[in-house]
Amino acid sequence: MASNQALILFSGGLDSTTVLHHAISKGYECIGLTIDYNQRHKYEIRISQDYLQKLQLNGYIFNIDLTQIGGSALTDNNISVPTSKVDGIPVTYVPARNTIFLSIAAAYAEKLNINNIFIGVNQIDYSGYPDCRPEFIKSFSKMINLGTKAGVDGDKLNIYTPLIDMSKSEIINYGYSLGIDYSQTVSCYQLDDKGRACGICDSCKFRKEGFRLSGINDPTIYKN
Amino acid sequence: MASNQALILFSGGLDSTTVLHHAISKGYECIGLTIDYNQRHKYEIRISQDYLQKLQLNGYIFNIDLTQIGGSALTDNNISVPTSKVDGIPVTYVPARNTIFLSIAAAYAEKLNINNIFIGVNQIDYSGYPDCRPEFIKSFSKMINLGTKAGVDGDKLNIYTPLIDMSKSEIINYGYSLGIDYSQTVSCYQLDDKGRACGICDSCKFRKEGFRLSGINDPTIYKN
Repeated sequence: MASNQALILFSGGLDSTTVLHHAISKGYECIGLTIDYNQRHKYEIRISQDYLQKLQLNGYIFNIDLTQIGGSALTDNNISVPTSKVDGIPVTYVPARNTIFLSIAAAYAEKLNINNIFIGVNQIDYSGYPDCRPEFIKSFSKMINLGTKAGVDGDKLNIYTPLIDMSKSEIINYGYSLGIDYSQTVSCYQLDDKGRACGICDSCKFRKEGFRLSGINDPTIYKN
Repeated sequence: MASNQALILFSGGLDSTTVLHHAISKGYECIGLTIDYNQRHKYEIRISQDYLQKLQLNGYIFNIDLTQIGGSALTDNNISVPTSKVDGIPVTYVPARNTIFLSIAAAYAEKLNINNIFIGVNQIDYSGYPDCRPEFIKSFSKMINLGTKAGVDGDKLNIYTPLIDMSKSEIINYGYSLGIDYSQTVSCYQLDDKGRACGICDSCKFRKEGFRLSGINDPTIYKN
């Protein structure tokens, strides 16, 4: 088993791009895994693939249409993306999304004989999603090593979350130190036809504030 | 939240049909969830839906094409279904399948405000799949209650596996006591065009042996 290979859950956003470069900097041979879940912000598929191609990295796109389930502003067009702060878990939360994504990543890892999965979740400056917390990731790691061949064979599957304790500004500063050009990444949930970020969704707000606090110039083109 | 509702992972096979009737007998209002994963044995989709319709139960079909990943005789036509006993985990094991299925079920449960999920895994008379063991299910339950809104809100998601410690013959005897007509269920991985079970795949072998040991007449039409 090639222990230096890593599967990176990669959406082309600020966080997963930082994770990708982190894994590269640690010497991993990186393979992207992009999930096309028929999300509202479908452009992230194209952006992520362009990015991988630029780095001459291989990638997979896995199609799973989560609008079949719905229940989120990102997977149901009848639910609007909120632009003001809400109490509790917001409607952009997609039911069990990271559990589903990590399960699919684990299946690819088994198939490809890869031991390492990287995901860009973080518990600081996030939107209150339960599946971005370290206790969830820890529990998922334990579970997946019981529920897969790799785990049973004693060949442990590792889930890495290098950003989990970083604030958005820390992520940005770290990414800059790795040489990332964040103008090539997109965070917005509802980019317009001209490629402009809305500037008012949760994801844009965290990004804007992150750049402000990082002291680094925000290269994003915002509509608002 | 309607606590008497239950989502049943339902393939129309011997095990999940028994689970469905078990849940009905316990007073649950049952909703089927059938996963079309582009499996070799696609007829199970039709059979499961016919069965639910006969019982006048609602059901969902979720499409997730696991041939995108492959790595199993059930999701890759280039890998044959084995007909003789192998050591270790056989090639009919689908990477992370039950983890993926349960994650999808959890997403539906969140969306539909259902607290109960039933799955027909069992660790006896099974093919050595890691994701059929009680330690996996226990770990999954813990993980999913950390990774979903339901778990965080304190509204626990319960995963029930009523068959987990039963042998195939015990399942059959139990099902008969519930009034199940097993001629309406299919277990074979490679049913032919005339609806005949192959009689030689693992799944057929466990079924045949289960009926033999149960003392109940096997209504299955086998080709071999």
